[in-house]
Formats: sequence, C-alpha cells, structure tokens
Amino acid sequence: MNELEIIPLGVVESPLTDAASAPKQGDEGAPDAWLVFEPAVLDGLQGVEPGDRVIVLTWLDRARRDVLRVHPRDDLSNPLQGVFNTRSADRPNPIGLHEVEILSLDGRRARVRNLEALDGTAIVDVKPVLRPQR
Amino acid sequence: MNELEIIPLGVVESPLTDAASAPKQGDEGAPDAWLVFEPAVLDGLQGVEPGDRVIVLTWLDRARRDVLRVHPRDDLSNPLQGVFNTRSADRPNPIGLHEVEILSLDGRRARVRNLEALDGTAIVDVKPVLRPQR
Repeated sequence: MNELEIIPLGVVESPLTDAASAPKQGDEGAPDAWLVFEPAVLDGLQGVEPGDRVIVLTWLDRARRDVLRVHPRDDLSNPLQGVFNTRSADRPNPIGLHEVEILSLDGRRARVRNLEALDGTAIVDVKPVLRPQR
Repeated sequence: MNELEIIPLGVVESPLTDAASAPKQGDEGAPDAWLVFEPAVLDGLQGVEPGDRVIVLTWLDRARRDVLRVHPRDDLSNPLQGVFNTRSADRPNPIGLHEVEILSLDGRRARVRNLEALDGTAIVDVKPVLRPQR
C-alpha cells in the first residue's frame, strides 16, 4: 500500500444521490443519513455514543481534482476564489468535513443528523468535536 | 494515480521535531509555523488573507495506521478508547485537523499561529473555518 493512500472505513447511506441538488452545507437542509462501517474498524468506535458531536471526514469521489479556483457556491456572479478559500468539493485532495450529531448506533451502523454527503461516499475518518477552551 | 491517493500540497516547517514532546493540541502551547506550498497549487490560495482562520489538514506520517484503540493522551490510567473517539494521531487514515490563524502570506509561504504538526508534515488541504449560523 502506498503510504499516502486512503483506506475507506465504510460508506455513507443517504437519500442524497445527486450532487447538483444536494445542500452545500449540513445546516442547509441536509437529511439524516447512515454511516456504515467496515467490520474491521469497529473497535475504533469504542466510546462513541448517541448525542456525541463528531467530525466525519469523507472522500468526495465525484469531485474534480484538477480545479484550483471556483466561483463560490457555483454562482458565476461570485468572483473566482482559490479552492482553499472555499468549501468546494472540487480541490486537489477532495476530503469533506462534516460536523454531525450521532443519533443512534447499531452494530456497524451509525445514524447521524444533517449530513450533506452523497450516497455511497467513502468514510475516511471520524473525530470528536473539540471545543476551544477559551 | 490511484483515485484514493493523497497528493501532498506542501509541507509544514516548524520547530517541532519530536512527537513525544509536541503539544497534543494547537491551543496547548504549539508554536507558530510555516506552511510551504508547492508552486503548482498556489492559485488555490487566491483570496486567503492574513487574519483568516483556516483548517489545515495534514498527513501524520509518523502515526501508526494499525491501531484502533488507545489510552487517550498517552496516559495509561485513561481507559482504552476507540481512536474515532479521540484525536490520537494513530488511526487508519492519519489525517490531522488543525484550526489556525493566518499571520502572513509571502509567495508560497504562509505563517500560521499555534500549529501542533511536526516539521516536515505534508499538507493535505486548507479550508476556511465556517461558523454555525445558529
């Protein structure tokens, strides 16, 4: 395995199947969805519980990796911006960040609230939300 | 190129060289550091300015990818937890998330505040911080 190769940990199951009509962010009307994990990584979920807020990292496989500037929110009236100044899915390493709440856990399936990732999107990582201590 | 392969966008230059003595989080005494980008991706930074808060994604190359449970904060008195319930660097896809402030930009170099990544760590992505609209 190449040392910079992502291992898919599971997939998103979601009613969202079309990128053009999907919400841009989770708080813009994204539906609840399932995270379905590979059996081999389930030990990594020990301690995750309903009510927890987590950051799900995904691999946005339908994104373009050769794009460095975009019109934000696909609106041509918005001036071109570097992709690193936007949350565009199109970027050299198309990793999505999604902050969601865990609603329930059942074996290898976790129900989450307001996830804007498309059905079939690979799960790359899950991390707890850390709140700044300031 | 494998479709799940990360392209390094640049590297971190930091006085931190030793994982054992590095702070666990950026707000725990991490130093200022430089992000040094590959010339090929500089267009992606258009619009990023000093004072911006961004999330830097890194590839934690010194992490162990075969670990699914850890003692949080490397303290054996803490009960084992799944890595997805911790910010441990050791995890199947060792991607680090670092929220930092851009202090200055000079060509391909960006100075950032309080970055806990080690010197030489690959940069995977940069995203603007989005504040919840609630």
